[in-house]
Amino acid sequence: MPDPNRPDPIGDDRLLVLYPSVLPHLAARIEALSPRLHAVSRDVLKENPALLERVEIAFGGLRGEQLRAARRLRWYQAEGAGVNGLLSPELRERGVMVTNTSGIHAEAIAEHLFGMLLMAIRCLGEARDQQRLRIWNGFPFPEHVTTLRGRTLGILGAGAIGGQCAEVGRAFRMRVLGLNRTGRPHPAVERMYRPGERLELLAECDVVMNLLPLTRATERFLGAAELAAMRDGSILLNAGRGRTVDTDALLAALPSGRPAAALLDVTDPEPLPPDHPLWTAPGVFITPHYAGNHPGYMDRAAEIFLENLQRFLDGRPLVNLVNLAEGY
Amino acid sequence: MPDPNRPDPIGDDRLLVLYPSVLPHLAARIEALSPRLHAVSRDVLKENPALLERVEIAFGGLRGEQLRAARRLRWYQAEGAGVNGLLSPELRERGVMVTNTSGIHAEAIAEHLFGMLLMAIRCLGEARDQQRLRIWNGFPFPEHVTTLRGRTLGILGAGAIGGQCAEVGRAFRMRVLGLNRTGRPHPAVERMYRPGERLELLAECDVVMNLLPLTRATERFLGAAELAAMRDGSILLNAGRGRTVDTDALLAALPSGRPAAALLDVTDPEPLPPDHPLWTAPGVFITPHYAGNHPGYMDRAAEIFLENLQRFLDGRPLVNLVNLAEGY
Repeated sequence: MPDPNRPDPIGDDRLLVLYPSVLPHLAARIEALSPRLHAVSRDVLKENPALLERVEIAFGGLRGEQLRAARRLRWYQAEGAGVNGLLSPELRERGVMVTNTSGIHAEAIAEHLFGMLLMAIRCLGEARDQQRLRIWNGFPFPEHVTTLRGRTLGILGAGAIGGQCAEVGRAFRMRVLGLNRTGRPHPAVERMYRPGERLELLAECDVVMNLLPLTRATERFLGAAELAAMRDGSILLNAGRGRTVDTDALLAALPSGRPAAALLDVTDPEPLPPDHPLWTAPGVFITPHYAGNHPGYMDRAAEIFLENLQRFLDGRPLVNLVNLAEGY
Repeated sequence: MPDPNRPDPIGDDRLLVLYPSVLPHLAARIEALSPRLHAVSRDVLKENPALLERVEIAFGGLRGEQLRAARRLRWYQAEGAGVNGLLSPELRERGVMVTNTSGIHAEAIAEHLFGMLLMAIRCLGEARDQQRLRIWNGFPFPEHVTTLRGRTLGILGAGAIGGQCAEVGRAFRMRVLGLNRTGRPHPAVERMYRPGERLELLAECDVVMNLLPLTRATERFLGAAELAAMRDGSILLNAGRGRTVDTDALLAALPSGRPAAALLDVTDPEPLPPDHPLWTAPGVFITPHYAGNHPGYMDRAAEIFLENLQRFLDGRPLVNLVNLAEGY
């Protein structure tokens, strides 16, 4: 039996499975599924780069040049939901399967987005600043607070995350509209629009939550024309991918109040350089791409990976399989 | 016909109705209900203090000494929900009816409380501070964010506001428990506790939203023993009345982590003086009593008042009548 940390490159024909070093207990669970599997942590790969060309299954940890060098790779389980970094024609041509962790971000992202939204409309950031001055009276902002009740929420990309946002919006007594590729309905969404009807949808919304994945069809989906269609005083949130919004068009639009605020967990570019005008643009609030973070995230991702690993061994279809042509 | 701004104190036996000057259109709507009514704005009262003793109906605007001086007052419609300032034995003995605007705060307060809560657990205040430094990377807080999903929410005082909080909590996939005087169930609350079971309830909750009115029974309802019963790392919110929490006990409890945070829209004392230790206590976030504020608030309050004014004229029971013995 070869030492798993020093696999014998000759005479070992087991499938090499790359796993995240932050989940050390995963190695035993992987190898318990089949004697054909040999789990290799990312730390071990780092020490033995030659192993890369033998990796057949990877649970995250590979990108760009590494993906190209992993010539025997058959299946890549992404740690996240967005897989725009994996959409090279090369992977498609090589027939590499890509799966994501769609579904495990829904509650965290919905909470993060509504947190950003409520912080803005209830002037909670201003209250935080005033608390530091220890002033109770003399606040101008209580006159400017508003409510979600009765407002219209538009959700772009009505998948697992969008569905959860829709349910929370309804609990806050909002009218909820949505947009997806096919217009197929969702029980929590009053009306679902198709991409071609986006201007009509945007004109209806007080709040727009953008959860679109980044594909060729969604790149700069929200440009100057779309922003101009938004309501005066409306609020745009983005927790999909930064490049689905035209940043220059957004910077030009904000002073006009359409939208009046942009609450962004993702930006273009990302990371945002210190001198970028988005940091200080009017109405912009930025969180550095952590809306999906939550305790136990990697454990939930590991469960999806293990379920898929069993399916892979059984020759059954994988869950959360990404269509590399469509990009999600 | 006497000039309504200068009513003739002799020969005018109409009922004087005091109304807020911020609602100038209300005068005509009041007087349209009956020729027996004479609407007087608070500004007019200020200029003619002698009118006070003739006021029989008041829509807000009177307190303390003025209430005592308004000897002919028969009905007082409060602008807010909390009427603890009106609970003098004297008003009870004089048979003055008091009504409140219970119901119109529900959505605004639920939004405000969930805004404070999500801002805390998603580290959005920290993100706001970092945005000012224009730093994308190097954030320690994304590792510390958490989620509401699967946590237990306890609602103290399960009336209109508590019910709305319960529905939002369920949409966020929380387990929702509650406490009210009688233990009567609520459809959005899994189990309703009685006041005598409060320690048992508090031990179950990750988040406690306190919406209790201030009465003799609820003053310092949350004292040292109750706070000690809370879970390690739990979060206490208060949007009821400041004096339902023992502030000294809270200040002593916070460093122990039970609760770990106190998100307060109401405090004791109020306004909070600049040198009060609550401003800088660990985990404390303060908004200066504006959770119920929202555009159109006074218009909604006026509709309740007008409905009650018609009922008063018809001799029918008033809506939102406060039991001055119970205090809400």
